Amino acid sequence: MAQPPIRIAIAGALGRMGRQMVEAVQADPRLALAARFHRPDSVGDGLVSRDEALAMADVVIDFTTPAASADLARVSANRGGPALVIGSTGFDAAELADIADAAKTVPIVRSGSFSLGLNMLVGLVEQAARAFAPEDWDAEIFEAHHRHKIDAPSGTALMLGQAVAGGRGAELDAVARRVRDGVTGARPPGEIGFAVVRGGSIVGEHSVSFCAEGELVTLSHAAGDRIMFARGAIAAALWVSGRPPGEYDMRDVLGFDR
Amino acid sequence: MAQPPIRIAIAGALGRMGRQMVEAVQADPRLALAARFHRPDSVGDGLVSRDEALAMADVVIDFTTPAASADLARVSANRGGPALVIGSTGFDAAELADIADAAKTVPIVRSGSFSLGLNMLVGLVEQAARAFAPEDWDAEIFEAHHRHKIDAPSGTALMLGQAVAGGRGAELDAVARRVRDGVTGARPPGEIGFAVVRGGSIVGEHSVSFCAEGELVTLSHAAGDRIMFARGAIAAALWVSGRPPGEYDMRDVLGFDR
Amino acid sequence: MAQPPIRIAIAGALGRMGRQMVEAVQADPRLALAARFHRPDSVGDGLVSRDEALAMADVVIDFTTPAASADLARVSANRGGPALVIGSTGFDAAELADIADAAKTVPIVRSGSFSLGLNMLVGLVEQAARAFAPEDWDAEIFEAHHRHKIDAPSGTALMLGQAVAGGRGAELDAVARRVRDGVTGARPPGEIGFAVVRGGSIVGEHSVSFCAEGELVTLSHAAGDRIMFARGAIAAALWVSGRPPGEYDMRDVLGFDR
Amino acid sequence: MAQPPIRIAIAGALGRMGRQMVEAVQADPRLALAARFHRPDSVGDGLVSRDEALAMADVVIDFTTPAASADLARVSANRGGPALVIGSTGFDAAELADIADAAKTVPIVRSGSFSLGLNMLVGLVEQAARAFAPEDWDAEIFEAHHRHKIDAPSGTALMLGQAVAGGRGAELDAVARRVRDGVTGARPPGEIGFAVVRGGSIVGEHSVSFCAEGELVTLSHAAGDRIMFARGAIAAALWVSGRPPGEYDMRDVLGFDR
Repeated sequence: MAQPPIRIAIAGALGRMGRQMVEAVQADPRLALAARFHRPDSVGDGLVSRDEALAMADVVIDFTTPAASADLARVSANRGGPALVIGSTGFDAAELADIADAAKTVPIVRSGSFSLGLNMLVGLVEQAARAFAPEDWDAEIFEAHHRHKIDAPSGTALMLGQAVAGGRGAELDAVARRVRDGVTGARPPGEIGFAVVRGGSIVGEHSVSFCAEGELVTLSHAAGDRIMFARGAIAAALWVSGRPPGEYDMRDVLGFDR
Repeated sequence: MAQPPIRIAIAGALGRMGRQMVEAVQADPRLALAARFHRPDSVGDGLVSRDEALAMADVVIDFTTPAASADLARVSANRGGPALVIGSTGFDAAELADIADAAKTVPIVRSGSFSLGLNMLVGLVEQAARAFAPEDWDAEIFEAHHRHKIDAPSGTALMLGQAVAGGRGAELDAVARRVRDGVTGARPPGEIGFAVVRGGSIVGEHSVSFCAEGELVTLSHAAGDRIMFARGAIAAALWVSGRPPGEYDMRDVLGFDR
Repeated sequence: MAQPPIRIAIAGALGRMGRQMVEAVQADPRLALAARFHRPDSVGDGLVSRDEALAMADVVIDFTTPAASADLARVSANRGGPALVIGSTGFDAAELADIADAAKTVPIVRSGSFSLGLNMLVGLVEQAARAFAPEDWDAEIFEAHHRHKIDAPSGTALMLGQAVAGGRGAELDAVARRVRDGVTGARPPGEIGFAVVRGGSIVGEHSVSFCAEGELVTLSHAAGDRIMFARGAIAAALWVSGRPPGEYDMRDVLGFDR
Repeated sequence: MAQPPIRIAIAGALGRMGRQMVEAVQADPRLALAARFHRPDSVGDGLVSRDEALAMADVVIDFTTPAASADLARVSANRGGPALVIGSTGFDAAELADIADAAKTVPIVRSGSFSLGLNMLVGLVEQAARAFAPEDWDAEIFEAHHRHKIDAPSGTALMLGQAVAGGRGAELDAVARRVRDGVTGARPPGEIGFAVVRGGSIVGEHSVSFCAEGELVTLSHAAGDRIMFARGAIAAALWVSGRPPGEYDMRDVLGFDR
C-alpha cells in the first residue's frame, strides 16, 4: 500500500508501442514514469539518453528491435541493473546468447507475446494435457482471424498445439491433423486437430477443446485490441522488479510451475 | 382447443424409429394413435394390415424403406388419402416419381431430416445469405462431431453451404473453401469456408457465421438425441392434415416462403 | 456494372458520424460523394448549403438531431427529393409526424440502429419464434457488455425479447423472466429468460437460444466497432435510391416480409 | 505395458452406478474385475461377501450410501487395505471422521463428483484466479441446464464461484453478484457475476470468463451423460492403487498442487 511506485523507463519511446507504454505507465498508480529514451543518444523533447534512463529506473520496458534489446541487456548487465522487460521479437542466436549472458547479472522477462490471457491459456492447456489421458480426451484446436490473415493455422494455434503435445510428451508434428476433408476414417486417439475460420475483422480467437465420452472441456481466448500487450508488460515489470537475476517469461509472471 | 385429435397411423411400427414414433404420438394430446402396421399384411400383437391402417388414419407417419414408402404413396393416392409424412431416405428416380405422382392426389411431407431445428437453421441461413452482400459478409461454416464419424465436412454442413450459395445465387462447388493450411493468402470475397472438429461423443453441432468489418452474425444448431426427429415428424403430421395435395418439405412446415 | 454511382450528400458532415460516413462513401465505388453540408447555411471548406446539397444528391444520409432531420424531411418533400436515410434518434411526436408526412412524397429509411447484423438478428429471431411452438422451444436471451454499462438487460436484449414475444403473439412483460435466483421451480413453458454478463471491454454480444428436448438453435450477434453503422447506412442508401415514396426501416432493406 | 491389471471390487454392484462401474471396469484392459458385492453378506448370482471382495481387490470402488461407505472404510483400514474410491455423498460429521481415520492406514479418494472435466475446470479456474488481478480481470460465471432444474445458480456454478474467490483470497458471499436487473451502475472490480439459462434438455454447461480490457479468457465444461462419472472413478482407481495412506480428492488425481 505505502510502497513507493516502481520507476519505469521506456525504450523506443517514440514508436507506436513505446507511446502506448508511456500512456499505460502514467495511468498506473503502482508505477512512476522515470524516463523515456528513444535511441541511446537522442535527447530533447522530454527524451533522455539511454545511460541517464538506466540510472533513473528500476525496470526498463523495451519493445524495439532485436539488436537494440540485446545491446540494452549488455549495458544493463555491465552496470548491474536495472531489470528488463523485453518484447522485441526476431532475435538471432548471437543476440539470444547476449541476453542469456546478461540474465546472469540482471533479471529479464522476455516474451514473444505479452498478452496475459494468451500466456495463461497456453499454461492451462499444457496443464490439462498433462492430466487428461490422450486415449480418452481428444484435443482439438480452433482459431478464427480476420480476412486479411494470409496463413493458417495461426502461430498461436500451433503454440497451443505444442502445449498439448508437450503436456502429453508427444511431438506435435507426429500427431497434428491440420485438415480434414473427404473420407477421413475414424479419429485416431492422440491426434491433435486444427480448425480454421477466416472472416471479417476478427482480431483473434483461439480455443482448445478436450473431448471425452460424455463431457467436453474448452479453454479459450479472444483478443480485442493491443492494449492487452501493454497491460502484460506492466504486470511483468511489477513482477520482475527486485527478482534475482535470470531469464524469465510470462509463464513465470503468471506463477506456473516450470 | 376442442378440436378432435388427429388420427395417426405408424408404418414400420416394430422398427426403432417406428417404436419411438408410437411413444411420441401416445404422449401428445393433439394426436390419437389410430393404428400400427409393420408390413402390409402382417397382423396380430396390436398390428393391423396396411389397408386397415389407412382406413383409420388422417395421417400416416412412415420411416421405413424407399420401396415401402413409394408403395404406400401409390396406395394412399389410389384410395384418396390419408396424408403422408415420409422420412425414408435413399429413393431412386422411379420411387421419387411415384411419390411426386401420388402428391397430385394427397398431401405429402417428405424430408431427409425431420429435425425442426436443423431445417430452421437451413432456412434462416438461406434468408440471411440473400440479404448479406457477399463482398461484405464472409460466410464460414463450422461443424463438430464425435470421434467415430468417418467423413468431413458433414452432409449437413454441405447442405448449409448450399443454403448460403443458393441465397447468393452462387454454385457451392465454385466457392467452397474446404480446408486452409499453410500460406493461403488473404480470404477472397464470396468464398464459403468450412472448419471441422472431431472428438469425444459430440452428437452434432453446426454453425454458420457471417463476418463483416466490426460485426458478426452466427446461426447455430446443437443436436442432443434422436427424440428431435420424432418431434419434427409430429409437427409435420399436425401441419399436413387437411392440406391440399402436394409434395412439401420441412421448410413448408416451418413457414418459409418458397 | 456500368450503372453510374449513386450521388450521396452527407448531413452533419463535421460531426463524428458525419465524418465517418464521408470516408465510407468515398471508399465505395457504387457511390459518389456529391456534397457535404453541416448546418443549412454554413458554407466553405468544402461544405455547401443544404439547398445546394439537396440539388446535387440522389440520397442524403443524415445522422444529426431530431429537429434537423425533421426539417430536412420537410424540405426534401417540398422540392420532391432526394431520398433520405435518417439515423437520428430521440424524435418527439411532432417530428415523427413531419417525417411520416414527408414520406408520402419521398422514400425515407429511418432506423434507431443501422447495424445490418443486429437488424438481421431481430428479423430471424421473430421468424423462428413464429414457427417454434412455445411449449416445445424455450426461448432464452443472453447479452454481454463491458464493465461500464449501467443497466441490464440491454435495450437490444429487450428488443430481441419483443421479437420473440411478437412472433408468438405474446406480451413480453407477461412472460419475461429477467432473473433467476434461489428456488425457482421448473421453467414454465412460454417464459422468455434473460441472462446478463458484464466485464472487461466487451462491445456487445447478444444471442437468442431456442431450446427443445434434444436440440438447440442459437442465433447471435457480436459487435466490434462503429464502422458497422456506416456500412448499414450505405446499404440503406443503395436500397432506397429510386424506391417509391414511403417510410421504411432496416427490416425492409434486409428483405423481410412485413 | 506388461503391468498386471489392477484388481477392482465394485461395492453396491446391483445399483445403477454399480452396474455402470462393472461395465466400465470390464471394458478397460488396465483393470480386472476381481469381485462384485452388494451388501456385506448377500452372496450368489456372481456376488461375493464384502470380506471376500476386500481380500481379492487392490481397489474398491464404492458409490453406495454414507453409512455403508464409512463402514467399508473402517473395515478396510482394520485389515490394512485395499485402497478405496468413494463416491457416496451426504456424509455426516461422524462418518467423515471415520473416513479420515481410515485414511491414516489406507489411501482413499473421495469426491462429490467424479467428472474429470468438472474437477479440471475447478482447478484451472482457481489457478487463473490466483494469477489474474481482480481489478483488471472481471470474473463472470455462466451456467445452463434443462427446464426441469428447480434452483439457480447450480451447485457447480457456486463451486466455481468459490474457486474464483478462493484463488483471490476473497469470500464468495461478499463479492457474488447473483442477478443484474434495471439500473445496476457500473460493475465494481472484484465482483463475481452469475448468469443463468434454463431450457430444453441441456444436461449441464458451465463456464467462467475472465474479462479484461481488450481480451477475454473463458474456461468451460459441457456435460453429456453419466458415463463421465464412471471414467473419473476409473482414473481415481488407477491413481490411488499403491499410494501412501491419506485422504485424496479428484484434484490430486488430476495433479494439481495443494
